[in-house]
Amino acid sequence: MINEYADEHKKMRALAGRIYDLDKRVYEEIGSNLGRVFTGDRDRTIDNIIKMFADTKESHILRSDLALISNMARSIRNKKVHKAVMTEYDEIVKTIDKLKLNSDKVEIIDKYIAGLNTLVMKKRFLEGQHLIICISRSYGSGGDDIGFGVSDNLEIDYYDAEIFKTVLKRLEAEKDGLIDASQMKISSASKLAKKNPGLARDEHFSLKEKISKLNRYHGLSIRDAVFFNQSELLCDMARKQDFVVMGRCADVILTNNCIPHISIFITAPLMQRVQRIMELNHVDKKTALRQVREVDRAHASYYKYYTGRRWGQAGNYDLSVNSASYGIKGSVDFILNVLKVNGIEKS
Amino acid sequence: MINEYADEHKKMRALAGRIYDLDKRVYEEIGSNLGRVFTGDRDRTIDNIIKMFADTKESHILRSDLALISNMARSIRNKKVHKAVMTEYDEIVKTIDKLKLNSDKVEIIDKYIAGLNTLVMKKRFLEGQHLIICISRSYGSGGDDIGFGVSDNLEIDYYDAEIFKTVLKRLEAEKDGLIDASQMKISSASKLAKKNPGLARDEHFSLKEKISKLNRYHGLSIRDAVFFNQSELLCDMARKQDFVVMGRCADVILTNNCIPHISIFITAPLMQRVQRIMELNHVDKKTALRQVREVDRAHASYYKYYTGRRWGQAGNYDLSVNSASYGIKGSVDFILNVLKVNGIEKS
Repeated sequence: MINEYADEHKKMRALAGRIYDLDKRVYEEIGSNLGRVFTGDRDRTIDNIIKMFADTKESHILRSDLALISNMARSIRNKKVHKAVMTEYDEIVKTIDKLKLNSDKVEIIDKYIAGLNTLVMKKRFLEGQHLIICISRSYGSGGDDIGFGVSDNLEIDYYDAEIFKTVLKRLEAEKDGLIDASQMKISSASKLAKKNPGLARDEHFSLKEKISKLNRYHGLSIRDAVFFNQSELLCDMARKQDFVVMGRCADVILTNNCIPHISIFITAPLMQRVQRIMELNHVDKKTALRQVREVDRAHASYYKYYTGRRWGQAGNYDLSVNSASYGIKGSVDFILNVLKVNGIEKS
Repeated sequence: MINEYADEHKKMRALAGRIYDLDKRVYEEIGSNLGRVFTGDRDRTIDNIIKMFADTKESHILRSDLALISNMARSIRNKKVHKAVMTEYDEIVKTIDKLKLNSDKVEIIDKYIAGLNTLVMKKRFLEGQHLIICISRSYGSGGDDIGFGVSDNLEIDYYDAEIFKTVLKRLEAEKDGLIDASQMKISSASKLAKKNPGLARDEHFSLKEKISKLNRYHGLSIRDAVFFNQSELLCDMARKQDFVVMGRCADVILTNNCIPHISIFITAPLMQRVQRIMELNHVDKKTALRQVREVDRAHASYYKYYTGRRWGQAGNYDLSVNSASYGIKGSVDFILNVLKVNGIEKS
């Protein structure tokens, strides 16, 4: 044990020495008396560097020091020296990594969340897993158009509140045996049944059965009942197909049900959104501002009520995109690019 | 003029008819009496669709309707019919695009911001333009480690508050003729001078001159003087080299000075960050929570004071990343991937 510690200490001492010497060499090459990070006595400096190694609190200072040395080293014009010095720098950084000395070894990752994040999942789309993109958006940001554009480009289904409502109305009607084609809109549920021909009948009925289960929500408010129905439908769909879903707290519902997905928040600066709503809804600035605030507030309150989280905080999504930085088509392309470069395709 | 209008109306009528017919065809193929979006009389439905065309307020309903038709069409199993129907659908969507009927024609883009966003700039790195990545981060999110990782991977300089302080101290010392290599840390300013050997002397002096200009800030608070010095130094550096810069309101300063860059906000859920700070600073949960809140509040107040904006709002950055979804190395890779897929390399 003592030997192990001594060995560890020897390694650190050697590493600190290499850092001191690298700094010295860069300084000599640059030939500037302003060039040095560590200017004191070699042994004492090495002691100080070792202290920084030992304390994660200090590690960011060491990192700034290393950054200064490498910023400097990168400016050496003699190619041979430049290469030698940068190689030594890279090796020092690698050794620090190996000794797990730096602060980035104290991880920030939430392994549960990361395990469901399709963008980083190592094994994508196992049996029963599909490409599901959850998009939340602030009002006026163009998020709906961007979500639709993404689904259209990927040729996967698109679901928003409107479509959910239609599907649930259909399911209710089926349950009550009140099916009347001339009165109803298409049911995505019936489409679901058609997707897997072998299971068509079963699925059809399992969805019907779901409705009968709805009775147990009858003690709840309509808002709650709708939310729970939508949640069940969402998880059901997620086991069967790829899709883009707008809002509906879908990200949190899927996380709670261990269903992999990507969550994206789309927003833009307030005044940019107000401008867009003025054009879109043919209203004046004051009215547009009120509408944006009202819709955002309603979103935030819905999200808070069902998830306990603050809506629109970047820490709640895998990725947040400022649509004003890219435009609508630009945002669609940006998201498609992100999927592509992370090797994500339809399941 | 009347003819033009009549012509436009005829086109819309034809398009609405195609939508009605597509819906009908899909419904017939699916053979479900639940299959139809538009179930009324053909002529009357076409009138309604035209009304939706004409009003951007209604266009999102039309989009939901189209999404329902395409969701349904995608589930047709007969390959020949599937292809024919999807081709017709695509052409309808394209025609809507061409007629500029849909809401995504009301843009959200901020042309000024987008024009400086390196991720979407068509002509990147013109004379005097460099790859500049501005990273803001909430405390404990690992943003510093991620920023350092990005700069290390790209082999470009890394600047944080610590390094800025050193550089400015050096410049002050030069101004006062108090240069003493044994007392001072390396000056990135002197490195800057070395980057362009031909201009070395000039640049050296122009930086020195900048310092003499600083006198005009002497009426300001120290905080303001430091801010203005840092801003000048930042813009100066941005005209000469690629780098990653942490915080310092760099995104807003560069925007105000028309200097292209990418702005990224890195954050993670509060409790994840508290956990990390506990490990990093060897403190208990209560202390860590207080530290996180204090540092975030200080950041927010600094940002608000100098930019008038709310810190950490996704609408203020080109891109926001939740480091808990990727981890530190994962976030570095993610950002590098985003740069790569958008064709961004060092200048």
